[in-house]
Amino acid sequence: MMRVLCLGEILLRLSPPQEQRLVQATAFEGHYGGSEANVAVSLAQWGLNATFACRVPDNDLGRAAIAALQQYGVDVRHVLLGGERLGLYFLEQGAGHRPSKVLYDRTHSSMATLQPGMFDWPTLLDGVQWLHWSGITPALSASAAEALAEGIREAHQRNITVSCDLNYRANLWQYGVSPADIMPALVSPCSVLLGDTSAFRRCLNLPLEAGMPPEEVLPRVKEAFPHLHSIAMTRREGISASHHTYQGFLWSHGRVYASRCYDMPDLLDRIGGGDALMAGLIFGLSASPHSPQENIEWAIAAGVWKHYVRGDFNLCSVEEVRALMNGRSGARILR
Amino acid sequence: MMRVLCLGEILLRLSPPQEQRLVQATAFEGHYGGSEANVAVSLAQWGLNATFACRVPDNDLGRAAIAALQQYGVDVRHVLLGGERLGLYFLEQGAGHRPSKVLYDRTHSSMATLQPGMFDWPTLLDGVQWLHWSGITPALSASAAEALAEGIREAHQRNITVSCDLNYRANLWQYGVSPADIMPALVSPCSVLLGDTSAFRRCLNLPLEAGMPPEEVLPRVKEAFPHLHSIAMTRREGISASHHTYQGFLWSHGRVYASRCYDMPDLLDRIGGGDALMAGLIFGLSASPHSPQENIEWAIAAGVWKHYVRGDFNLCSVEEVRALMNGRSGARILR
Amino acid sequence: MMRVLCLGEILLRLSPPQEQRLVQATAFEGHYGGSEANVAVSLAQWGLNATFACRVPDNDLGRAAIAALQQYGVDVRHVLLGGERLGLYFLEQGAGHRPSKVLYDRTHSSMATLQPGMFDWPTLLDGVQWLHWSGITPALSASAAEALAEGIREAHQRNITVSCDLNYRANLWQYGVSPADIMPALVSPCSVLLGDTSAFRRCLNLPLEAGMPPEEVLPRVKEAFPHLHSIAMTRREGISASHHTYQGFLWSHGRVYASRCYDMPDLLDRIGGGDALMAGLIFGLSASPHSPQENIEWAIAAGVWKHYVRGDFNLCSVEEVRALMNGRSGARILR
Amino acid sequence: MMRVLCLGEILLRLSPPQEQRLVQATAFEGHYGGSEANVAVSLAQWGLNATFACRVPDNDLGRAAIAALQQYGVDVRHVLLGGERLGLYFLEQGAGHRPSKVLYDRTHSSMATLQPGMFDWPTLLDGVQWLHWSGITPALSASAAEALAEGIREAHQRNITVSCDLNYRANLWQYGVSPADIMPALVSPCSVLLGDTSAFRRCLNLPLEAGMPPEEVLPRVKEAFPHLHSIAMTRREGISASHHTYQGFLWSHGRVYASRCYDMPDLLDRIGGGDALMAGLIFGLSASPHSPQENIEWAIAAGVWKHYVRGDFNLCSVEEVRALMNGRSGARILR
Amino acid sequence: MMRVLCLGEILLRLSPPQEQRLVQATAFEGHYGGSEANVAVSLAQWGLNATFACRVPDNDLGRAAIAALQQYGVDVRHVLLGGERLGLYFLEQGAGHRPSKVLYDRTHSSMATLQPGMFDWPTLLDGVQWLHWSGITPALSASAAEALAEGIREAHQRNITVSCDLNYRANLWQYGVSPADIMPALVSPCSVLLGDTSAFRRCLNLPLEAGMPPEEVLPRVKEAFPHLHSIAMTRREGISASHHTYQGFLWSHGRVYASRCYDMPDLLDRIGGGDALMAGLIFGLSASPHSPQENIEWAIAAGVWKHYVRGDFNLCSVEEVRALMNGRSGARILR
Amino acid sequence: MMRVLCLGEILLRLSPPQEQRLVQATAFEGHYGGSEANVAVSLAQWGLNATFACRVPDNDLGRAAIAALQQYGVDVRHVLLGGERLGLYFLEQGAGHRPSKVLYDRTHSSMATLQPGMFDWPTLLDGVQWLHWSGITPALSASAAEALAEGIREAHQRNITVSCDLNYRANLWQYGVSPADIMPALVSPCSVLLGDTSAFRRCLNLPLEAGMPPEEVLPRVKEAFPHLHSIAMTRREGISASHHTYQGFLWSHGRVYASRCYDMPDLLDRIGGGDALMAGLIFGLSASPHSPQENIEWAIAAGVWKHYVRGDFNLCSVEEVRALMNGRSGARILR
Repeated sequence: MMRVLCLGEILLRLSPPQEQRLVQATAFEGHYGGSEANVAVSLAQWGLNATFACRVPDNDLGRAAIAALQQYGVDVRHVLLGGERLGLYFLEQGAGHRPSKVLYDRTHSSMATLQPGMFDWPTLLDGVQWLHWSGITPALSASAAEALAEGIREAHQRNITVSCDLNYRANLWQYGVSPADIMPALVSPCSVLLGDTSAFRRCLNLPLEAGMPPEEVLPRVKEAFPHLHSIAMTRREGISASHHTYQGFLWSHGRVYASRCYDMPDLLDRIGGGDALMAGLIFGLSASPHSPQENIEWAIAAGVWKHYVRGDFNLCSVEEVRALMNGRSGARILR
Repeated sequence: MMRVLCLGEILLRLSPPQEQRLVQATAFEGHYGGSEANVAVSLAQWGLNATFACRVPDNDLGRAAIAALQQYGVDVRHVLLGGERLGLYFLEQGAGHRPSKVLYDRTHSSMATLQPGMFDWPTLLDGVQWLHWSGITPALSASAAEALAEGIREAHQRNITVSCDLNYRANLWQYGVSPADIMPALVSPCSVLLGDTSAFRRCLNLPLEAGMPPEEVLPRVKEAFPHLHSIAMTRREGISASHHTYQGFLWSHGRVYASRCYDMPDLLDRIGGGDALMAGLIFGLSASPHSPQENIEWAIAAGVWKHYVRGDFNLCSVEEVRALMNGRSGARILR
Repeated sequence: MMRVLCLGEILLRLSPPQEQRLVQATAFEGHYGGSEANVAVSLAQWGLNATFACRVPDNDLGRAAIAALQQYGVDVRHVLLGGERLGLYFLEQGAGHRPSKVLYDRTHSSMATLQPGMFDWPTLLDGVQWLHWSGITPALSASAAEALAEGIREAHQRNITVSCDLNYRANLWQYGVSPADIMPALVSPCSVLLGDTSAFRRCLNLPLEAGMPPEEVLPRVKEAFPHLHSIAMTRREGISASHHTYQGFLWSHGRVYASRCYDMPDLLDRIGGGDALMAGLIFGLSASPHSPQENIEWAIAAGVWKHYVRGDFNLCSVEEVRALMNGRSGARILR
Repeated sequence: MMRVLCLGEILLRLSPPQEQRLVQATAFEGHYGGSEANVAVSLAQWGLNATFACRVPDNDLGRAAIAALQQYGVDVRHVLLGGERLGLYFLEQGAGHRPSKVLYDRTHSSMATLQPGMFDWPTLLDGVQWLHWSGITPALSASAAEALAEGIREAHQRNITVSCDLNYRANLWQYGVSPADIMPALVSPCSVLLGDTSAFRRCLNLPLEAGMPPEEVLPRVKEAFPHLHSIAMTRREGISASHHTYQGFLWSHGRVYASRCYDMPDLLDRIGGGDALMAGLIFGLSASPHSPQENIEWAIAAGVWKHYVRGDFNLCSVEEVRALMNGRSGARILR
Repeated sequence: MMRVLCLGEILLRLSPPQEQRLVQATAFEGHYGGSEANVAVSLAQWGLNATFACRVPDNDLGRAAIAALQQYGVDVRHVLLGGERLGLYFLEQGAGHRPSKVLYDRTHSSMATLQPGMFDWPTLLDGVQWLHWSGITPALSASAAEALAEGIREAHQRNITVSCDLNYRANLWQYGVSPADIMPALVSPCSVLLGDTSAFRRCLNLPLEAGMPPEEVLPRVKEAFPHLHSIAMTRREGISASHHTYQGFLWSHGRVYASRCYDMPDLLDRIGGGDALMAGLIFGLSASPHSPQENIEWAIAAGVWKHYVRGDFNLCSVEEVRALMNGRSGARILR
Repeated sequence: MMRVLCLGEILLRLSPPQEQRLVQATAFEGHYGGSEANVAVSLAQWGLNATFACRVPDNDLGRAAIAALQQYGVDVRHVLLGGERLGLYFLEQGAGHRPSKVLYDRTHSSMATLQPGMFDWPTLLDGVQWLHWSGITPALSASAAEALAEGIREAHQRNITVSCDLNYRANLWQYGVSPADIMPALVSPCSVLLGDTSAFRRCLNLPLEAGMPPEEVLPRVKEAFPHLHSIAMTRREGISASHHTYQGFLWSHGRVYASRCYDMPDLLDRIGGGDALMAGLIFGLSASPHSPQENIEWAIAAGVWKHYVRGDFNLCSVEEVRALMNGRSGARILR
């Protein structure tokens, strides 16, 4: 059972029920999640040994975030307790022509004030075969970026596979550096990368244009980051707040593989879709005999499933992802 | 006012709210229902004298199931109290590409341990003009099958019209007989039958193939069961968990009549759709002057309406079904 | 900041949750609203000085209705306290082929028993530049119609712009006059009018036919009511209870301007859509430099947005309407 | 099985959840109930043949009220459909020092516009052995009072036992007569009466003083209304909104019997407490061999139980009332 | 109508429903409130012209906080938009032996980063007759303390009455000064003060001992702060999380007046009790003819009422407070 | 960190919200729990290494039960998957004079069909220092009793401390043996025992009388089961469904120690109170330097706290139990 370490921030999401606007809300649904935590939950459910590392405050909210991960079998022994607050975000779920809206309240969080030296890397990386991180951590603060760099370095030295989801968020990166200043060095030692054209351009400084087909984009990323052996991107078309299409692409051994394109009507919750796909990639790549085509099909199916589960975590079994990948319709009642 | 006796099991359905997965649920919505109970509720609302016969435990859950039927005007005087437990099922409502999932917890129920001789048939059938049953009861246990057979025999002797909805469920039938062993004898005395190709094949042992058109299927059923005067089937295409199409077919006097085919987006609750259609058939057939085309149109409209009512029961008036059948759009607000 | 006075009735709407049927409901969601109140809330949010005038009972329900308006910044100083009861309506939200259903319980309301002379017009109209009313008030009772006529007269004498939304409801108008008896005189002094073909025919006695294109309809309204400088109508096609299309048309300076036609899937709440559009018209017309095309585009975008907000009030900012009008998709998450 | 006819109004109660104030409410819990309907539900649960007669509007609310009674086994075949609206009341549940608050919205209801001649008394009273009514019906309107008088007269002629709960509400009786004008004549033919000192004084015109002991009050009622064979009253002391004491008194055969006095902390819902007690009296008196002491103990126990059931109806079995009467503590878990 | 300016921070309270622990919560009830905002809401409801001044972020949460105040009639024109975030707190409601627990998340809030010079005092104080503040604002940050000092100075110069509720919170005051360093200077110009023995000692540096009777405590406060004309304190005894006693004391013109002592069982929400009492004091003192005894009785009754309203705001009318003060029991249903 | 193995059944509790009666329920709150699972959750929260062993079905309900334990840090690696169904119980929460009512639906559960030989004891007991079981497991079925006996024997051979909570339930023990037939042999090897007089009499066959003081009862238990070194019992007085008193007694080294007696008003959920106390005993006894008096005080405080947490699990920290034990009132808000 492969041990995967996911390092990143876990947040509490607060969301008015029934697509209410924030001003109408007299109650908020609560879900814990975050890009790397979501990956860990997927992997733990699918039977991997998933460890999550982050820093949460030593208070009841921090402990509740940990308990949420434990419920789904994630190993949380290495979560640090400290700092001032748990990051939050408020989410208005949209509908039809009204877009969903995120109001971040994550500044000054325990993870944003993470410092290099806080994690005991030898202990944390002991037995670990894969390290996963995303572009959110270096976007939080200079110290968080440095702590992450430390971890990537330590992992690389131990021949641990490193994967990254670029996860570019324009409204983070508020501390004075641009992603292009520091991301290339962090991505260099990675073997597996997920992004999109805009993220490749802004984080990796690659001269790409919006609308370029994956067949052009992905080889250029490979060229610039030769250590990568698998590079994935997705194409999402939005028809309304609750109706998208979704397709994945994977560069592997000099070729780009395109997945089936899913029509996704009646979405329940799109947050965490990319994380579910990322987890699908890690799962597929870490199990030996799959072809690249199978890997991207598995990953996109995992990503699609997430759009039909409320909350940040993609709750599903290996069998459920496989059935979707194999074309089982959502229309039959399973008895 | 025709008196119709519906005989079958009533269950409590427990369902996580908001399409949650079972593992997320901290609460469950509760609905009482069951194939034959659902038929009885439809008929009672439409003004027939609907009686429901079954066996429920002599405890607060059994009594609550009875009260749920009373609320909609079903005559419950003949429900037996006894046995160990009320059957339950847990339902995860699906969405989009995620199918709905039923987890049955109905073994050892009071109805499954029903024995021949428990019902006092002369009393129960007194004044009854129509008996309705479904293929679920004989699937529960040998003793329930025998008790049902007893009732069908008694009804037949009294010239009571008998109707059957085959309702084939592969995960029932766990007690050592196959449906084809006993269903043909039970269906023989029936006048009205509802099924689908797979049910006709497995329950009635007819050599039919998936995909055969109703125009071929239904005459073969008639041939094998000459007592039937009306045989119905439906064709359901599933686009997603909440978007289907639905069409009904009725064999009558040597012809197959096809209903309008409905596009059904934004389904609320598909459970009980077939039962609503079955009730529509009984209602139409028991009222004299309707043509077969009218009957199947009425039945399919009743079935379609059910997909837009939460719970197992199809709550609607005769006027509402008729308006849908006559093409009234769901888009207008009725004031 | 323009001061707009909206005069009409505010009601409490009671709605079973989750598209339940009334007979299933053990709880009701509550929303305050009413055609003219909805207009006032839109205008107040967009920065206008919106005053609402009506009559509510001097009890906790009347006061709660006032508080609901205050929450969104409407000036309620001129609401009269008195009369017997607050008007209510029960709303079953429909789905798919099941239409939404309104059960009015508004007879004998404080507004229906409004009498001429109750409002102190000089005070109420002091500083007001625009008066908005709808065809609901004259439909309530003879005395309410007279009180409204009094107000329109007073406004006209002060050169206040008057706008009307015909809002024809066949099940009101129960007090012995037909709309065509009194509406033409009330509409005569108006400058801005919203309606549809059927309302123009029944309220204004114009010889129009269903299905006539706006390009034919609107000029005839202008001809009959020469004081009007802007006349709007909408075309709504209903695909199901939660999927419509919506388009607006505006006559101005001798020409009819058609807006973009919106496809509206996955509607949350269509009540108040026309009121939101009416507010959009008032907002656009009261700010000088917009073209008629811009005005109808703004108004229809406001109307479309409403379909994605629960309750009667259209909660949105100027920026949100503008973004929708400029083609921003609902599919992106705003962060 | 004795057939008891309860005649009165059924209302929809709307109540903000969690003791919210009306102005805070965004939802309302709904319960159907009414003094005489509550009596009918108690009796039906206890195995009597309870029929309810009233008039409700021929709309979905009226039918939902009927369904609520059916759920608990009340015979509703004689409920009239007609009139304008179902009576409503809004209830703010109090707590501690904050009293509960009722806002009636029942004027113009179908029952208030009931007319003499609407009920077909021979059919309605066929097989009936007991008629129960309360002082609420004559308080609604002159026509409702006359229709009731008609029924009492018809019942009396048929030697049907008649019982009355005075149920004096000062804020009803708005139509120009005082209770003392008409109640004595209505009470005259009754055999069983429930009231309190203030009701005896105001409705029956008896010269009683607040604080007089039941031993003085009840004989004077007997003296004035010699047809009565059982006269009950209760003494309620209020410590806070959710903590009362409750004791019952019964005059029978020349003596006053006092029940045990219950301390009632942590009340859930006190509405319907007196109705539950009234039902207890009818139940006890209609079953022959009980002593007056047993009857008042049974009645007060039924009344006490109601304070611990939400909604208007007193949901409990004969065994549960008996266990409470026999001193079983609420503290044990029943398994 | 007196104009009162309340200056302080408004927060969003997030609270697990049904006394859940934070780790169990999948939803949070939301209430806006804060010591000075709560005072403003009370005063606005009672008919005063209450203005609230604070600083909230220019985002949807900031605007929702403003809307919550508007709903209850508070004038919010002078609320500043700016800064990083709205302060939050998480509240676990306790029960019995389990205490309620507050987890503050208010650092870096828009109000904590308020700077001197941000408020335009001449505009803000125009027409104001009373300024109310509490010890929470100076506890937030040095800059907030300075901005407050500026306001108090400006008010004092204009002969505006100034009141203060010391509101000592040990876990605030984290920025390096102790309350005793700066509070005395802020309290000096005040005329009305609310506190308790511990707050007088820690904030005002007075040599008082726990347990000293109000008759000793209050004169010493007067001696140290001779500008004060009214000094109030309360005595709260806690029997359990939901059962307290509450009594108020008022020094006025050389005498200490003690209110009735209330027993408060079955508390719904004790947060804001002191603020409600403070509002009661301001209301009483600003209306001329009341005696000190009446003032403290009114204030304590207002404070008691708050314990029976959910949320931070004390929703009640002048009549309701008066009835409680005059001894009306919570046990009667008001109809 | 001591490793404690708790062996028993985990059930799903389904409970109508707001103290509704079962017949009223349209939803059910869900909580997983069971006597030994509850002990494990307490111990895991307090920092012990708590392992839970049981058998649940290999379906989504079984897995959800496991996830509920994982959330609170219990080691579930040894839970067996198999059998037919998860045990359920329906709980009506009582109030005041209405007792809580449990309707068990646990027959045929996976744990009831546990067989000897299913657990791999060497693996399961590896590293375990303490085994805890209760009298519920032997009450389920002969095979479950035998499997348990096997485990106790294996534990005893390895010198593992064994504790037992007698947990006598009269409505279990349906398979033909009486507790006195088999419990004494199971209790013999135990070192720690919790019970009450009735359980000691029925399960251990000791000649005790109801009402005997603990000082007499406990020494007799010691005498009969000399291997025991600690024997505890509790005394619970019930004032109403939500108001009890609670006191603990502990025999140790020849003496009986009585704890403080707690008055417990306003109970939230009493289920699991004894389990919480049992966990307190294990916690205290396994940590060396506590006196017997401290142990019983700690245990009763843990038990009291449970009454104020919803669900079966006693969610609290060591610090919270200690504060309660040290007399901290529930009345203060912790900030």
